[in-house]
Amino acid sequence: MHPIDVFARSASEFRDGRLSGEVLHHAKRAVIDWHAALFPGLDADPVPRLRRVLADDLDRGGARLPGGRAATWRAAALLNGTAAHAAEVDDSFRDAMYHPGAATVAAALATAQQLGTDGLGFLRGVVMGYEVSTRIGVALGRAHYRHWHNTGTVGTFGAAAATAGLLGLHGAPFGHALATAATFAAGLQQAFRMDSMSKPLHAGRAAEAGVLAAQLAAEGVTGSRDVLDGDAGLGRAMSDGPDWSTVGDTLGRDFHITRLTFKNHIGCGHTFAAIDAALELVRRHGLRPAGIRRVRVATYGPALDIACHQEPATENEARFSLRFVVATALVHGSVRLEAYTPQRLADADVRAMMERINAVVDPAIDAAFPARRSARVEIETMGGELHAWLQPDRKGDPELPLSDTELDGKFLELASPVLGAAGARALLARLWSLDAAPEGALARLF
Amino acid sequence: MHPIDVFARSASEFRDGRLSGEVLHHAKRAVIDWHAALFPGLDADPVPRLRRVLADDLDRGGARLPGGRAATWRAAALLNGTAAHAAEVDDSFRDAMYHPGAATVAAALATAQQLGTDGLGFLRGVVMGYEVSTRIGVALGRAHYRHWHNTGTVGTFGAAAATAGLLGLHGAPFGHALATAATFAAGLQQAFRMDSMSKPLHAGRAAEAGVLAAQLAAEGVTGSRDVLDGDAGLGRAMSDGPDWSTVGDTLGRDFHITRLTFKNHIGCGHTFAAIDAALELVRRHGLRPAGIRRVRVATYGPALDIACHQEPATENEARFSLRFVVATALVHGSVRLEAYTPQRLADADVRAMMERINAVVDPAIDAAFPARRSARVEIETMGGELHAWLQPDRKGDPELPLSDTELDGKFLELASPVLGAAGARALLARLWSLDAAPEGALARLF
Repeated sequence: MHPIDVFARSASEFRDGRLSGEVLHHAKRAVIDWHAALFPGLDADPVPRLRRVLADDLDRGGARLPGGRAATWRAAALLNGTAAHAAEVDDSFRDAMYHPGAATVAAALATAQQLGTDGLGFLRGVVMGYEVSTRIGVALGRAHYRHWHNTGTVGTFGAAAATAGLLGLHGAPFGHALATAATFAAGLQQAFRMDSMSKPLHAGRAAEAGVLAAQLAAEGVTGSRDVLDGDAGLGRAMSDGPDWSTVGDTLGRDFHITRLTFKNHIGCGHTFAAIDAALELVRRHGLRPAGIRRVRVATYGPALDIACHQEPATENEARFSLRFVVATALVHGSVRLEAYTPQRLADADVRAMMERINAVVDPAIDAAFPARRSARVEIETMGGELHAWLQPDRKGDPELPLSDTELDGKFLELASPVLGAAGARALLARLWSLDAAPEGALARLF
Repeated sequence: MHPIDVFARSASEFRDGRLSGEVLHHAKRAVIDWHAALFPGLDADPVPRLRRVLADDLDRGGARLPGGRAATWRAAALLNGTAAHAAEVDDSFRDAMYHPGAATVAAALATAQQLGTDGLGFLRGVVMGYEVSTRIGVALGRAHYRHWHNTGTVGTFGAAAATAGLLGLHGAPFGHALATAATFAAGLQQAFRMDSMSKPLHAGRAAEAGVLAAQLAAEGVTGSRDVLDGDAGLGRAMSDGPDWSTVGDTLGRDFHITRLTFKNHIGCGHTFAAIDAALELVRRHGLRPAGIRRVRVATYGPALDIACHQEPATENEARFSLRFVVATALVHGSVRLEAYTPQRLADADVRAMMERINAVVDPAIDAAFPARRSARVEIETMGGELHAWLQPDRKGDPELPLSDTELDGKFLELASPVLGAAGARALLARLWSLDAAPEGALARLF
């Protein structure tokens, strides 16, 4: 059976089956984390420029932008999908090297708003998008990731599956939505190996392409059911001809959406265990910046190779500077969006703290990489005490997930600058009760 | 220099340089042939379905659909690009294995209508799109064509270059339009190896993606200038890492637009030399169907391998049946759109003629393939005369181009069923005088 047919056959089970409380809970967490990533992206390049380009698709249509501005179905998917990936703090599914939320939730939300779907139906669409697309991403494997940006390519399937599910497609038309999505999928890794604004557009274009593919399938447009596994199909064109035979084996039983990684910091992920360890020491010992004499970070080699900038001059270099982000954590208590403002890049306290930080490779930690992504931080105080903490995994990985409270904290921190503290709290409450939201409520979400 | 920079540098020459009368003439021919392909595509799948999906982008905006219905800029590009490829009779540039017109002209026309560009400016945009994209297609070569559909992938550059040119971008922003287009480019060959409606959508999506990429570049959105030639760039992801060093060598001197192939028939191109030979014999000897006793077609092997259906039952099989299309030519005098109607598929005269046709491989003709794509047809009349004609090339190829009069005939035959004979003639006259069309005239073209 073609993998497209496997997914097509599963669609009615997704549509009619009961989602467990656990899956629903994780779906709401994914939607909350998507919103946490969305708000800081709204003013990041290229989002304001894209908003100007799409001006004639705004202030009309049944979908919504943050703030409540009306937008057409596809324009909302394109804009919100782009914004949700622009601050680089969106979720990921590790085994697929893929950020599933950006495109999938953007497409599902625009569709649910346009159609007046209730909250439970919306969450069901989100789950469908995650489950189908992460499995395609896993099948495509590392060979795909060599040249392609999964958030754009695989994300197209997430958006298509979510939209097709919300449109009530199942069986052959659901398959045609995926098949058409396959031949719309795009996004080159090279597009972000040089400084450019392309990367978030991959998520937006994926969201829009998936919506269009599903809309077309609803109108009877057929795709090729062998487009994933055929000789000139996605698997050969964009990977090394992967094995599709097991792609649906756990579908509907093992829910990938329960095993997402939520970023707890903003910056290069290889620095996250070190940040976590530093924050843990601050918390345990009530350390204050002025009381810190010396910091030693021991971690795996690639973390130092990649997060390598010793004296970062730009925002992008700062994101890839282990010294900068650990110093920021020690001085300011978190490494989120404001860590990279021009003021912060020039912050004398952070720069002074950086001078006290030394990073080295720890052979034992390095040997355990990539299965474990650990860091050990030692802090010597001005008073001569020595504190140490080994952080075995990144906070936010499935092994060490953000608690609901921690996720709330991340959301409130990132949403409040846009919505205000009260607005952010109100939206958060609406998101946690999404499964009870009536028809039409999603258009009044923002 | 990155190939993107080569094209970026050439853009101001294209913008400010004088186009020779010969290049302008060929640009008008390309635009006329694009319209000839557009009209029969309007009612072909998936165009009417796409029109319904895009309903909220119609009856507003500055661009136009055939018939004059208003459409938004990008929706017109998407719809007209799809329609221009749907009947499979659009132009090609052989060395790039690519149909350059479908996306390029659709994007240029929508942009020119939106901006109120005059006819000469529009033609200049068309030429830019053809020259940039055909060179990218040639560089990508056969390795790209193995999995990818150039009309979708390479077409994105045609649409982006044309639109960027019409927007007045040159230098770096022109390059960013191409760079963003590169990471939007998509379209798998597998999408039409199984019966599906995807293929024309590749042209439409290319037109729309190119327009969007150029619109974004005009708003200052940057792409990666190394996106074609970098390690994870288009050349490696979608081909075999081609040599880009000569991509701009003949740019602005040798105009590819003067060497297009225009299809003179509808169906598998490998049958065209045989159709041409049969029609030549009819013309020379005044043959009538009832006077034909026996027909022998001798051609190259792949023509028989591909156009192989002996008793075609469906429209698609008929397009790939040498016997059917030669019989149609002998009975009805042309092999265009109406050759594939249900009535014609069941036409007793055509079926009777098919019984008299025998096709074989000619060793000499086969040895000359693919440099020459020839066919020799022998017809024995009921009166016992034997007539033979060797057709060395396809009519419509650069070596044996359609005369302007023949192009007019093709246009009028394909446009008249939609516009009426007078309407088609009036549009044809407008197209031949495009270089004198004032600002705003393009919005009144249809």
